Amino acid sequence: MPKSAMLPFMPAQFQEGPVWKEVAPGVWGNQAAGHDRRLNGRATVKSHPAETLTAAAQSSPRLDRLKLLGPASLPFDLKTVNIQRTGERSVVTLPLAPGEKIFGLGLQMEGSDRRGGVYHLRVDHFASGHDRLHAPTPLYVSSRGYAVFFNTIRPIDVYVGVGNRLNDAHRPAARDRNTDPHWDSQPDSGQVEASVAGNQLEVLVMAGPTAMNALQRYNLYCGGGPMPPAWALGFWHRSPLTATAQEVQGEIDEYEKRGFPLDVIGLEPGWQSSSYPGTMEWSPVRFPDPKAFVASAKTKGVHVNLWENPYVAPGSDLFKLLDPNFGSHTVWLGAVPDLAVDEAATKIREFHQTHHVALGVSGYKIDEVDGFDNWLWPDHATFPSGLDGLRMRQIYGVLWQRELDRMFRDSGERTFGLVRGSNGAASRFPFAIYSDTYDQHQYVTASTNAPLAGVIWCAEAREAASPEEWVRRMQSTCLSPIAQLNAWSSGTKPWSYPEATEAVKKAMLLRSSLFPYLYTAFAEYWLDGVPPVRPMSLVDGGTETDQYMLGDDLLVAPMFSGDKERKVRLPKGKWFDYQTGKLVGDGETITVKPALDEIPLFARAGACIPTIHPTLHVGLSGLKEPIEWKKFGEGDWTGRMYTDDGHSFGYEKGDFGLYEVTLKQEGQLQFRTLAGRRSAPRN
Amino acid sequence: MPKSAMLPFMPAQFQEGPVWKEVAPGVWGNQAAGHDRRLNGRATVKSHPAETLTAAAQSSPRLDRLKLLGPASLPFDLKTVNIQRTGERSVVTLPLAPGEKIFGLGLQMEGSDRRGGVYHLRVDHFASGHDRLHAPTPLYVSSRGYAVFFNTIRPIDVYVGVGNRLNDAHRPAARDRNTDPHWDSQPDSGQVEASVAGNQLEVLVMAGPTAMNALQRYNLYCGGGPMPPAWALGFWHRSPLTATAQEVQGEIDEYEKRGFPLDVIGLEPGWQSSSYPGTMEWSPVRFPDPKAFVASAKTKGVHVNLWENPYVAPGSDLFKLLDPNFGSHTVWLGAVPDLAVDEAATKIREFHQTHHVALGVSGYKIDEVDGFDNWLWPDHATFPSGLDGLRMRQIYGVLWQRELDRMFRDSGERTFGLVRGSNGAASRFPFAIYSDTYDQHQYVTASTNAPLAGVIWCAEAREAASPEEWVRRMQSTCLSPIAQLNAWSSGTKPWSYPEATEAVKKAMLLRSSLFPYLYTAFAEYWLDGVPPVRPMSLVDGGTETDQYMLGDDLLVAPMFSGDKERKVRLPKGKWFDYQTGKLVGDGETITVKPALDEIPLFARAGACIPTIHPTLHVGLSGLKEPIEWKKFGEGDWTGRMYTDDGHSFGYEKGDFGLYEVTLKQEGQLQFRTLAGRRSAPRN
Repeated sequence: MPKSAMLPFMPAQFQEGPVWKEVAPGVWGNQAAGHDRRLNGRATVKSHPAETLTAAAQSSPRLDRLKLLGPASLPFDLKTVNIQRTGERSVVTLPLAPGEKIFGLGLQMEGSDRRGGVYHLRVDHFASGHDRLHAPTPLYVSSRGYAVFFNTIRPIDVYVGVGNRLNDAHRPAARDRNTDPHWDSQPDSGQVEASVAGNQLEVLVMAGPTAMNALQRYNLYCGGGPMPPAWALGFWHRSPLTATAQEVQGEIDEYEKRGFPLDVIGLEPGWQSSSYPGTMEWSPVRFPDPKAFVASAKTKGVHVNLWENPYVAPGSDLFKLLDPNFGSHTVWLGAVPDLAVDEAATKIREFHQTHHVALGVSGYKIDEVDGFDNWLWPDHATFPSGLDGLRMRQIYGVLWQRELDRMFRDSGERTFGLVRGSNGAASRFPFAIYSDTYDQHQYVTASTNAPLAGVIWCAEAREAASPEEWVRRMQSTCLSPIAQLNAWSSGTKPWSYPEATEAVKKAMLLRSSLFPYLYTAFAEYWLDGVPPVRPMSLVDGGTETDQYMLGDDLLVAPMFSGDKERKVRLPKGKWFDYQTGKLVGDGETITVKPALDEIPLFARAGACIPTIHPTLHVGLSGLKEPIEWKKFGEGDWTGRMYTDDGHSFGYEKGDFGLYEVTLKQEGQLQFRTLAGRRSAPRN
Repeated sequence: MPKSAMLPFMPAQFQEGPVWKEVAPGVWGNQAAGHDRRLNGRATVKSHPAETLTAAAQSSPRLDRLKLLGPASLPFDLKTVNIQRTGERSVVTLPLAPGEKIFGLGLQMEGSDRRGGVYHLRVDHFASGHDRLHAPTPLYVSSRGYAVFFNTIRPIDVYVGVGNRLNDAHRPAARDRNTDPHWDSQPDSGQVEASVAGNQLEVLVMAGPTAMNALQRYNLYCGGGPMPPAWALGFWHRSPLTATAQEVQGEIDEYEKRGFPLDVIGLEPGWQSSSYPGTMEWSPVRFPDPKAFVASAKTKGVHVNLWENPYVAPGSDLFKLLDPNFGSHTVWLGAVPDLAVDEAATKIREFHQTHHVALGVSGYKIDEVDGFDNWLWPDHATFPSGLDGLRMRQIYGVLWQRELDRMFRDSGERTFGLVRGSNGAASRFPFAIYSDTYDQHQYVTASTNAPLAGVIWCAEAREAASPEEWVRRMQSTCLSPIAQLNAWSSGTKPWSYPEATEAVKKAMLLRSSLFPYLYTAFAEYWLDGVPPVRPMSLVDGGTETDQYMLGDDLLVAPMFSGDKERKVRLPKGKWFDYQTGKLVGDGETITVKPALDEIPLFARAGACIPTIHPTLHVGLSGLKEPIEWKKFGEGDWTGRMYTDDGHSFGYEKGDFGLYEVTLKQEGQLQFRTLAGRRSAPRN
């Protein structure tokens, strides 16, 4: 171990270090980090809210799965970590080794290695920079194979290698800028320093041994990833702003008629009788018979998702139900329900259950929980639960996910939805994050950084300036964990560009055919904390943000609009073009020049990918279609496959099967059960 | 008065309002705002520092001059102002009337009317936005003729008409975005809300009756504007980074030889034996005989200004002197002196006196006191005085100005310098602010916003992409309060573009000729708190940021590089071209198409401008040259003129004269003494 990592400065006031306790296998916390449930059902109104993200999310560690990762140690001594109160803040200092790379620090839209930067992690609708993020998860994962999670609902400032202390014996020597060519404007401090206001800071350090293992421990500590219903892995389409039931039904029919996959239809503000602020009640004008509408869609294999901007129109029924459990300030003149108050949370769940879920609604898109300044409430806003505006803003999206998740669990049907703001400890919630930014490079970068924030990212398509862009956007979303066309504003359809229609359909059908593979990748998120998208940083320490692994065996390298070719860095080993099956390289960087209807998608040698014949509604038939195993390279092949009933919570009680499949050169399939009580298929 | 301004919401917890006291004529404070001197000379090490900017700046109100403004009332009832503690913050709410415009909120580089915006006022080297400013003075001036100053050294968040409270009876009615074309995405709240962390917030409300009067009260409350030495109004040039004494002397000689004005030569980092971090000692290599160098320059009418980045090289003599009065973190590996500790401040003054001022040095350029994140210390840094990094960053530039001002006062010679970071209550310090941004539009906008932040702005020239740009840049700086060519990086000289040389010289000589007028404008800043640059917002409520009044009678409308023409809005009355004396318009918007060597500069009808024959060194002869009165329009003319000895502090003891001059059509001059004990000249 490099000396500098083992011997950070240790000024006098730091010598009383924190007491560390292994709070879960391979997870150490400085405050005997338990699972504070003060934001839980048991909280009483006006009780002082808990300060941790795990408490806000009501997440419990998956100890059974954590145990499977085995015992592990850290590459540095926890005694070198200092936590102290200075002035009005709590400060933690952690060592950095020379050459160590730091990944994560939220759903970043740019870059990968965070060393040399300063991050003020706040929930916001991303505009630019590295501070105000849709999900500012205060988690970092080190290239040395460990992770650090600052378990706080306050905005935290993180200095990664920045800020040399005067009394640090290892501080670099000063040089004269006038004359010394080796003068450095930003000498690395060999430390991470992070601080929050107040006197509470829980720090959780997760062991590896690999960076991926460390992230798995984080996700499992926070409850593991969500297991989506089968339909959630189909294609999503959002209807125009004020479409009527009839118009939406027309869109559904058009998908069917043209042979394009569709599993989810999203209704935007106009489904409500009034919006911004919203009533959260159906518009009697545009949706006179919502029950019939939802049922009709579902019969055709299409699930209904409702947009909500969760601020309540004064005078509406929901307002009366929730009054007075609102924050001091309005948002778009709507009242802000305080979901940290049990009574309010219960009424929110009951209202949604009665008015929507009982009618068959399958999920929500919770918009605008990530605003700032002009859009949400100020830091000094007050809430009945005792939370202030600053902290409520950090967890408002988390609280909505928590309550909607709970409601669907109570209903017995899985959900999957969208949310625009989240934070740490929210891994377990069945929501994907989206954005109003629309830069394709940022969207793909977000795909690679979301896993490091413990969230799922939806690189949705919205519109395009050309048919070529439309194809590349739709290809990007089809290889995203959640594939959505969000056309509420532009009204764009998959077939809006005649010359692009076949290429778009090809991408959508490719996604449909990959259903068993994607479903398995999500199951691994739930079971092992391995996210469906795996950034290169976790695969082999790479810093690329324009390519990623999707599941265990597929490498995705999206084409960016306007480009005719691109470079792809192949990880170690031989790789094959997914569509042609041809060898493309062996642990090298290649240049590909795909035709417009081709996506650079590669499989590793020995992979055996479970696929199905494309279906228009994976929710209806994705789990019933016979598996077609696609194999790459020579020799024996192995793959994995997960199955369950596709919609209930039976899997949580063991009603599922995760199998390893081996296909011998002789053509014989062998199944081995890895988890679950469903018996393996025979072949 | 509009009803909404008189009857803001008043929730129950607000009914115990603050107790207001008139702490100076027309100035009301909520905490019987005295002049807390806990950051003063009397502070003891480790005492808890004061929280107010007036205490940090050790500013005392100029009660004598405030009295002259007469009694005044506010256009709203102070009982409608609420101040309360909510959670961890102190919050103030103030009324806004319909149509009311709000100006100020720091040295903003963009825009004018702040209504509808949110401002997180922090010291930083401006990059973009409205939050991180070189001088985030928490002061606003209303178009209704009053000002509000949040007297706090903490970063304050200010919501101007943003954030409707749920329990505000005057909250606008909600509308349905789905169907209502009058739906508004940002309904105005009719309130200013501001909040800071902690339980202290001093609010000072200044009466008008005009907006300018309100700003005057602010400036006078903070000690009035600085009276520069005469030389400071000449031309400033900064030498290249590592120029030697001989090379700098060569530059001075070149100005003289070519007939270009020069009063100040600025030395950049290379004057020190080591920089970034600095020793603050002369380089024996580049400046072997600093005393002779400084004396030689001064003999030629050129004053020496020293650049300092105020972070001390470990091991240097100054470091040893100051140890251990440093902050916890280094900046460029230099130690950060805690100037809130008396002992450190005293030693800093003594060191500068001995090593520089005793040799004849006339001032400083204090760089990099406005960094953030990667450049300065973190919020959680600690300082021996008890200040934390957050608060120290807000006032570090103020503390340096305070101590250097004090040192020069002790020496008996006035100074004028540059500083890159300042804050509120710093009006009285003889420093101008500059920036590393270099957009000409931003620079001119800053000229118009600096007065609203109680600071002087230097729209310096650095370099240009073309001769045309060079001329426009140099014209801009020549009509700035401080005119500087900052060529440390580019090495550009006024004559670097042969085809532009005459136009540049014309602008520089124009400035020289305006010396008596500019000196008088500064005297009015000192005496009455009226800044030398007067933004249109204070002249007649205009929101233009591309034109301004310089002194009482001249309207400056800089030409922007690349433009062939521009519009100029003439305030009420007739206006004349300064150079040709021709009538250009009467309270209308005109379009001007100036030749490259012309600056759009206009005088109001009846103005009588004191000028001199251009001199190359106004410090040497500006106060001795005979006055040439330039008059505009018909009828009688009036002007003002200030005089003193140009360099000492005698003016503070009454050794000055401010005269009103009347020139009758018959050609007779009449002088009337307005202030000071110098007798008026006879004519």
